Amino acid sequence: MAFEDILYEVEAGVATVTLNRPDRLNAWRGVMEAELRQAMRLAADDAEVKVIVLTGAGRGFCAGADMDVLQGAVSAGGTGGGAPDAFDPASRPDFRLQYPYFPAVPKPILGAINGACAGLGMVMALYTDIRFASEATVFTTAFSRRGLIAEHGMSWLLPRIVGMANAADLLYSARRVDAAEALRIGLVNRVFPAATFRDEVMAYARMLASEVSPRSLAVMKRELWNSPFQSLSEAIVDANADMALSLKSEDFKEGVAHFLEKRPARFTGR
Amino acid sequence: MAFEDILYEVEAGVATVTLNRPDRLNAWRGVMEAELRQAMRLAADDAEVKVIVLTGAGRGFCAGADMDVLQGAVSAGGTGGGAPDAFDPASRPDFRLQYPYFPAVPKPILGAINGACAGLGMVMALYTDIRFASEATVFTTAFSRRGLIAEHGMSWLLPRIVGMANAADLLYSARRVDAAEALRIGLVNRVFPAATFRDEVMAYARMLASEVSPRSLAVMKRELWNSPFQSLSEAIVDANADMALSLKSEDFKEGVAHFLEKRPARFTGR
Amino acid sequence: MAFEDILYEVEAGVATVTLNRPDRLNAWRGVMEAELRQAMRLAADDAEVKVIVLTGAGRGFCAGADMDVLQGAVSAGGTGGGAPDAFDPASRPDFRLQYPYFPAVPKPILGAINGACAGLGMVMALYTDIRFASEATVFTTAFSRRGLIAEHGMSWLLPRIVGMANAADLLYSARRVDAAEALRIGLVNRVFPAATFRDEVMAYARMLASEVSPRSLAVMKRELWNSPFQSLSEAIVDANADMALSLKSEDFKEGVAHFLEKRPARFTGR
Repeated sequence: MAFEDILYEVEAGVATVTLNRPDRLNAWRGVMEAELRQAMRLAADDAEVKVIVLTGAGRGFCAGADMDVLQGAVSAGGTGGGAPDAFDPASRPDFRLQYPYFPAVPKPILGAINGACAGLGMVMALYTDIRFASEATVFTTAFSRRGLIAEHGMSWLLPRIVGMANAADLLYSARRVDAAEALRIGLVNRVFPAATFRDEVMAYARMLASEVSPRSLAVMKRELWNSPFQSLSEAIVDANADMALSLKSEDFKEGVAHFLEKRPARFTGR
Repeated sequence: MAFEDILYEVEAGVATVTLNRPDRLNAWRGVMEAELRQAMRLAADDAEVKVIVLTGAGRGFCAGADMDVLQGAVSAGGTGGGAPDAFDPASRPDFRLQYPYFPAVPKPILGAINGACAGLGMVMALYTDIRFASEATVFTTAFSRRGLIAEHGMSWLLPRIVGMANAADLLYSARRVDAAEALRIGLVNRVFPAATFRDEVMAYARMLASEVSPRSLAVMKRELWNSPFQSLSEAIVDANADMALSLKSEDFKEGVAHFLEKRPARFTGR
Repeated sequence: MAFEDILYEVEAGVATVTLNRPDRLNAWRGVMEAELRQAMRLAADDAEVKVIVLTGAGRGFCAGADMDVLQGAVSAGGTGGGAPDAFDPASRPDFRLQYPYFPAVPKPILGAINGACAGLGMVMALYTDIRFASEATVFTTAFSRRGLIAEHGMSWLLPRIVGMANAADLLYSARRVDAAEALRIGLVNRVFPAATFRDEVMAYARMLASEVSPRSLAVMKRELWNSPFQSLSEAIVDANADMALSLKSEDFKEGVAHFLEKRPARFTGR
């Protein structure tokens, strides 16, 4: 499949989706959004893919909306783009809208934030499951300096990741936050040196793809992203039903067997 | 306007509200609460004010309820004070009660926690948007050592700022927490040396007042404080409506123009 | 009372419950679960007990489900164990199920995570109010490497303690997390050297048992654990009702008196 604004490759169970407009710091435009969605669909449907990595080509991750797009919006007094169809119509309503379909993909999505991450780049990063930053990465929400707002659910997601007060600081000031601060406030899970960044991220991705049950990953991702919308007892009732199914699965048998036999696991996802 | 227990001044788009009973470490009493509310109303209504700073005179921020008030409550077997009228009757029910009207003020409120912050002082600090502490600041919830409880929504707010387990530690033990620990657990956003504390806070406040869109600030504050009460899809539906309005605003035009022209922004808030 | 899988002792207002199968790293089995519940009931009902410490004998805290139990589940294609009766039928539905009855115990439960903490051990630790780790402690969720899922509400609780992204990392990878990282991400409140671990935990427990109001502790624990299920205004309405009762209590009188008389408090819990 040939893409214009992204790259897509699969290796060792890991699909890597690369935002690929490096001369524009991978600035967002409509083509990129549509292709990203197609790539996520490919990865979701491919049984060989256990884990997805989202990253950027060149120096940046995503600098936000392309200035040409924003200037067009100024001229037009708005944007013409409507929300595309839901990624998965069966998913909960929270995950059917324009950006937050990442949580409906039943595989972990790792945000490999290799460099500048701004505006819509931050929106995409926040919807990944786990975020890794290079030491060279700088984050900014950008919106308040453009006269814009917290878009696409960022006002909902950011306080749940970094807390209300850090969310206010990042949104109000749109100041530049470096990787060390991003780690301190919980915006990213881990920071790696720029020189070894891709190797470190891929090592983590391959570990997930080879050492743990893909079936467990799919259930856990669903559990985690459902939990903000549930009471504790609702979460437990669901977990008990999933546990009963797990105890009958192939992967549970293998999970106990490889441990007792002190050998690497060979999970099938069944 | 002459106040008895507070000071109020406006400069360079920043309203500073100072709790001003320094000989009592700015201990709370009814007069202070009423005047604080008046000052917040002044700042909310003054178009020149873009940002509000709440701080304390002298060595402390606020030592909590004045001991005279507490002793009176012991004698009377309770307090006579009822909840005042809502700050903004049109705001969501969550922000109409005695203390939590700060989120209904459509401008950022920065907590400049210059020194001792205890009991009701903690309540006030928790309702600000962003908290800065001096290196000399010490926090304590105080209530469990007075035989009291988590008052005025502190049991709701504190776990959303520092997590359930830190909230339990702070509330149960009422132990003294210094600025470094406050930063580590997320109780404050940043810590500054005592000598430069006010300069650092004012620099941040002036940056917000001059470099970002006041319109963006008002919308973002509303988005952020609504988000705990919304599902993700509700937040996105609201954000999409606000985004459509933003794209037609003066501040969006200026936000793109000043960036392309590489000059400071001149936002009007329209 | 003689137990098989646990130890129970009370001293200086502190009940210590020790998981006691040290030759199996205190691996969980049905007997342990039933006895733990009995011990929590004893501690809840004993007026001398102000604080509860949950810890493990020997090198570990709890290594998770006993391998014999898991192998039995593989053979049987599931487990036979149903949920026991509610700990407190009057508690909110969220706290009536198999594990999460800890929040219904009206006294602080301190998790003294002395060593290896895995799988169901993590579940138990997450339901305590405050977690202390020894420098030697290592955590792992374990489930994804067994082909299992996030059990017993862990998917609900973990993101509220360490945030969504750290929860995803811990659940998906089931990697080993040491005490320093556990502290950084908020999984534990504090880390103590192994040599002084029990002394430090007991000093904190005794401080709670002697210096603060047991009445305040019971109300605050209820407030805190109710707060995830409430709007802010609901939490404030409840707090105002509890505050009015507190102001009429013996412990409030004593809370003011010991402060003014500059002497240690003598709270009665009334």
